[in-house]
Parts: sequence; C-alpha cells; structure tokens
Amino acid sequence: MFKIPRGTRDFTPEEMEKRRYIEECMRSTFQTFGYREIQTPTFENLELFTIKSGDAIVEEIYSFTDKGGRKLSLRPELTAPVIRFYVNKLQMSPKPLKLFYFGNCYRYDRPQKGRYREFRQAGCEIIGTDSPEAYAELIALAYKILKNVGLKEIKLKIGNLSILSSMFDKLDILKEDQKQLIQLIDKSQFDDIFNVLNNYGINGEKANEFIDLLQTSDPKKILNYIKGDETAEQQLSDFVEILKFLEASFDVSYQIKMSIVRGLEYYKGIVFEIEAPSLGAEKQICGGGAYDLIQLFRGRETPTAGFALGFDRVILALEIEKYNFPLSKLDFFVIPINEDMIRKSLQITQKLRMLGASTDIDLMNRGVKKSLKYASSLNAKNTILIGPEELQQESVTIRNMDTGKQKLIKIKDITKLIE
Amino acid sequence: MFKIPRGTRDFTPEEMEKRRYIEECMRSTFQTFGYREIQTPTFENLELFTIKSGDAIVEEIYSFTDKGGRKLSLRPELTAPVIRFYVNKLQMSPKPLKLFYFGNCYRYDRPQKGRYREFRQAGCEIIGTDSPEAYAELIALAYKILKNVGLKEIKLKIGNLSILSSMFDKLDILKEDQKQLIQLIDKSQFDDIFNVLNNYGINGEKANEFIDLLQTSDPKKILNYIKGDETAEQQLSDFVEILKFLEASFDVSYQIKMSIVRGLEYYKGIVFEIEAPSLGAEKQICGGGAYDLIQLFRGRETPTAGFALGFDRVILALEIEKYNFPLSKLDFFVIPINEDMIRKSLQITQKLRMLGASTDIDLMNRGVKKSLKYASSLNAKNTILIGPEELQQESVTIRNMDTGKQKLIKIKDITKLIE
Repeated sequence: MFKIPRGTRDFTPEEMEKRRYIEECMRSTFQTFGYREIQTPTFENLELFTIKSGDAIVEEIYSFTDKGGRKLSLRPELTAPVIRFYVNKLQMSPKPLKLFYFGNCYRYDRPQKGRYREFRQAGCEIIGTDSPEAYAELIALAYKILKNVGLKEIKLKIGNLSILSSMFDKLDILKEDQKQLIQLIDKSQFDDIFNVLNNYGINGEKANEFIDLLQTSDPKKILNYIKGDETAEQQLSDFVEILKFLEASFDVSYQIKMSIVRGLEYYKGIVFEIEAPSLGAEKQICGGGAYDLIQLFRGRETPTAGFALGFDRVILALEIEKYNFPLSKLDFFVIPINEDMIRKSLQITQKLRMLGASTDIDLMNRGVKKSLKYASSLNAKNTILIGPEELQQESVTIRNMDTGKQKLIKIKDITKLIE
Repeated sequence: MFKIPRGTRDFTPEEMEKRRYIEECMRSTFQTFGYREIQTPTFENLELFTIKSGDAIVEEIYSFTDKGGRKLSLRPELTAPVIRFYVNKLQMSPKPLKLFYFGNCYRYDRPQKGRYREFRQAGCEIIGTDSPEAYAELIALAYKILKNVGLKEIKLKIGNLSILSSMFDKLDILKEDQKQLIQLIDKSQFDDIFNVLNNYGINGEKANEFIDLLQTSDPKKILNYIKGDETAEQQLSDFVEILKFLEASFDVSYQIKMSIVRGLEYYKGIVFEIEAPSLGAEKQICGGGAYDLIQLFRGRETPTAGFALGFDRVILALEIEKYNFPLSKLDFFVIPINEDMIRKSLQITQKLRMLGASTDIDLMNRGVKKSLKYASSLNAKNTILIGPEELQQESVTIRNMDTGKQKLIKIKDITKLIE
C-alpha cells in the first residue's frame, strides 16, 4: 500500500462537500464587498520568500531546485505572490484594487491537529488606500466572512504596530532589544516582560505602566503615553476612527489589544487577529493588517493591507460548534428491472440530468433489492423503477425513499417531477 | 522586479471569472451524473508515479527531496493519487464508486501555447463496474461536460486496446516489436507502419489489411479479422453495445478509431479521446478509458475506468470559438459626497451587502466625478450618491450607470432596489 505524504490529507466526498460549501460562502462575501478573485502559481522563485521573510524561512518551507537549476519554493503564504503579481502586471489598475484569493500553501512543519504541511488559505489585499474607512471595511470583511459561514464564537482583536513602536521609543528601547521583547509580548508573558524591562534599566513603575498599556482597552491612556510623537498620534486618531466605523457602520464587536505583533516583519500600523476560542492552542483563524511590501518588490509605493484566513481551521471550528452542514442528496436513482430495460432507463436518466437533476442509475444489473440498498447509500431522494409492464403503459414507478411510497407516473410527465 | 516561474501563470480577475464559471459548470455536470468530488494532496511520494509510469517519468516531473529525506513529486496527473486514496481508504465503499476531481498538475515541459508547467485538470474515475452501460455513461459524461460548458466543435474518438492487441496477435508481432509500431500508430503514420510491418516479414497485402482496420469505422470488418480470439470477440461485442448506448440513450456522436493507443501503459480495453480541432497541434482536450492500477497499488482487484480533461485547453478553445463568457457586474457603488457622509454611506453599503448585493464604496474620499469614473471601471450597474441635502429628506440619489438617469429614493426603500 502506498502512503499519503506525511502532514497532507485526502478529502472524502463528504468532506469536499463541506469545504466547497464553505468556500463558496466565503467567495460570495468577498464579492459582495467588491473584491475580485485572482490566482497565482503554486510555486514561486525562492527569493520571493527569502527577501520578504529572511533566509531563515528556508528551514520551514518546501524549497527545491528545478531541472533548469532554478531555486523554487512551494508558497508558504499568498501575500508575497499577490504583491509580485501586482507589481508585474496590475500597477496601472484603478485604485483601490481589491483582490481576493483561495489557494493551498505549504510549510514543512510538525503535523498536528489544525497544522498541516499542505493547508488552504483564503485572503485578500486592498491596494492603493490607507483611509480609516478602508481599514474598517477590511476588518469588517474578515469578521463578516466568518459570521456568514456560520461561526458562532469568534474574537476580533485589533492593535497598531506604529503605536507599539512609539511606546518602545518612550522607554528608549533599542531596536535590537525590542526583538526579544516582541516575542514575549506576542505570547502575553507579562512577568517576563517586566523582568526584561528591568534588565534594560527601566524601573518597576515605568515597566508596569508599559505592561498596563499593552492590556488596556482605553485609547485615551495610550494617547497620554505617546503624546508628542506626531506620527503615533495620527495613527491613534485613525485607529479610533476605524473602531468607530466598525461599531457604527458594520456592527462588528472587537477588543483593543496593543500587544498584537504578528509574526511577520513587514507589517506596520493597523494589525488584527481573529480567534475561534473553541480550537484551543491553534485558535487563531485570521490575521492581517497594513504592510509594506511593494517597494521591496520594486514597485511604486502605495498603501497595502490585507488578511489571510486559515480555511482548514475554520472548518474545524465549525465542526466543533456542531455546525449543520447542508448535505446534498441524489435526486433520482434509476433501476432497470432487467437487462432489456437498460437502454430506455439510460434515456430517462439522461433526460433528468439534462434538466439539472442529479441522477444515477444501476450500472451493475444487480436487481431491485440490491439497487435500492445502493440508492440508500447514495442518499437518493427517489428511485425510479423501470420494468416491462410499466413500459407498456408508457409509465414508470417512482418511489419516495423517505416514506417508501410508490406511484405510477407517465414517462411524458417525468419532467414535472423537477420543481 | 521578481519574475513568475517559467511556464506558470497569474490569473487576473477577468480570467478567474471565466475559469470559476467553467469549473462550476463542469462540477454541476459531474454531479448530475452522480459523481462526487474528492481531493488529494498536491504532492505524493515519487514512487507512486514511477511504479505506474516507469523511472523515465522522473525526467518530466517536478520531483524533490524533503527535509526528512523523503522523495516527493508534484503530481503530474491525478489518476494515480485517486487510486492510492481508494486503496488506502475507500475500498469498502458501495460499488460502483463514482469520484471526480479538479486539481492542478505539474510537468517539467517546454512551455508553449496550451502547454504549461502548472496546468489544471478535471477528471473522474468509476470503480467497481465494467458493464457496457457504465462505459457508455462515462464517455457520455466527458462529451456532455464539454457540450454543457458551451464548446461547439468537438470530436470524440473511441478505440479498444484489447482489440488492437488481438490484431497484433493475428500478425504474430512480438510484444517488443509492438512498442515501435504503437508509437507510429499513435501518430497515424501509416506509410511508416507499412514499412515496419514489411521489415517484420509481413507481406504488403496483410500490412494493408492491418492498416485498413486501424482506420475503419465498421466493427464487422474488425470482427472478421479477430474471429477465434474469444476475449477480443467479447470486447468487440461490448464495444458495439457501448456505441449503441451512446447513440440511442445519450445522443452522443463519435467516430471509431482503432489506432488510439493512449500514452500510458496501464490502459486496457475501451479507450477514448476528445479533440477540439480549433486548437491545432495541441487539440486533445480529453483522454480516458479502462485501466488496471489497483493491483499495482496493492488493492483488491476491481474494474476501473476514468478520464481527464485539460481545463486550460477547454478555456482556450472556448476563447477561440468566441464564447460569450458572462461578465459579472458590481450591483452598487456608493459615493459619499463629503467626509461627513462616510459613516452613513458605510452603513448603507453594508445593508446592501447583507442583502446579497455586490456593493463597493469610495474609500479614498475623492469626490463625485472621480468616483463615477472609478465606478465605471468596476462595471457598476448603479451608483448611490449620499449628500447632506438628500440625507435631510432621509433619501439618497441613485444613478443608473447605463442610462445616466438619476432619481431620489427614500433610504428605507433602498432594500426594494434588490429584486
């Protein structure tokens, strides 16, 4: 027996039905927000990812050399490919440009629940505007997608990296020293943050004030702290406006969380994350914000922001919440009573299909009883029995598989069965 | 500027719209035929493809070694992965099992029109039956998918490898010698076939008879030739029955072509190909037939057949036929007249979206004239202008972008705009 590669998955018809349904629902929400779908290749030149995330990323991704000696990599995420596409071909498009995507991504990671080596992401980028209403709309979109697919419990947290950076400046923390702190902030390890700040010569009072701000939900407190830093003040005023739009126009509930740092180096300004608490350790299902990547990719500078959703985790969270996925049924299963009935049965089957009804037929000539059992296994709503006596009356027998009731109907009336 | 990898493509919103539309249409035809969708990983253990197609395939595919030393390969096709999945997990499912898939595949090939290094395939497999009605249905499905997506000119050609093999036997051609002939037969190089047969000591009359049969559309001629070979006679009788079903039950037109050999070694019995002649050299858009692969993958033997469609070539052929792809329009574009109108405008925008209308809004605060231009670039059907005077009357101005006509409507009546 040949094994599936470690960390990857096969999806059964039942699983695919769920996944297609949720994907279609997400796609439709993207579209109602005026976003349009694009697609990029499954692999890119490795450089695209190392220039963005540093050489260390090579350890975590599927990189390889092709037969022409090119260094390639299966994409670990989709923002870099989308921005490459934008710089190559879409820079002249009217702004803002609102793009969304679905795509599989790949990471060489230790497989566990909610973490796979091949996983699916949905996401979007908005290019060409940095207005508060644009950011509010972007965050609302992420939130509405998750609400529209039917997730009950989600938590949206919003922060701002420019403000966080200004907070560091107030304490005169050097860029190199910030790195260690950022890791601790990311994990909300406040005791450790306190100790590290002490080591940097910052006294207990100041350290506590800083840690307090990382946890506050009051923008005024933050304003008092960063006062005098004009960039940060403007960011904070925009931040407050974004929050107002979210409440007043989009009916979105959120939590301020200044300790959001995002793993990626190219974010700046607004950042946000959405969690599905039911997922436990791997609860983050969405992350996004404003970022700078276009110049790095040698395009003309313009504001960019976006987010990515972990498609697999959304499905997992819906399953945990016992979401009632719609299960498609087979409309008709056609059973020829004997071999002579096959040709006529295929004709009737094909007629129903052309009218759009999902219709299957016994292809093994195995008789009524076994065929009924098989039809049940396919979740057939109705079976149609075709025998010589019925055919003499130009009729067939239709059986409702839920009630077991049967009736004779004229073949010419069969199209009426399709509402 | 970072380049896209050679032989791969980015798809613009316009292209993706076409592709999603065609994919959805294909999916729906698979489903009306009682097929159910599955998915397998993008890469597999390399062995899966070498055991099926021989070590030489490594030259044509993207194979690589992962960080754990595993030899992997991006999938060059989907039949082997689907059968691996079947053997691993689905052997106990009720038969026949009808599975379809969409998936990107990868070949290290010289890129040219209609040939890409990353390309999309749609396809299906039917597992557990070898009845003539099952094969007729399978071939009809391939044909109907292409007709339903709107292709006008397609040619279906049907052959049978068991019968071809029996024809070889009649001439006492050794297995090793058949290989050279098969390549010539595949390319319909009849003069060369004649010469090779002569070299094998077969006289001109017999060689011509053989070549004649490769081109005949009369099953009776073939029957006379293979008479006495019981397996081939049974195959021919089934073959004729399949053709009858195709005509009488499925309304499918076809051509008999005994010279179909298919590139792959594991086919046997019925084989078929569909061409879109408009595509020129790369005109084959579908290939399939019955094959043996399950035992090779160490599963319990059961009949299998299937086909794969070249998704990209179907799109290309539709474009050549000037197919009228439906172009989706934006339902509404909302324009706040000034900054104070933004909050109310976002509210109205969001209301329309929640009703399912695709709605965009000026996110750059750039005034009416520029916004109208942008709305045009998005193919907006209507724009909604929101200004202070209108708001005092609890109204907004709606403008039909085709006719240019404007009218004032009450905000509370706005939901009526959505038919």
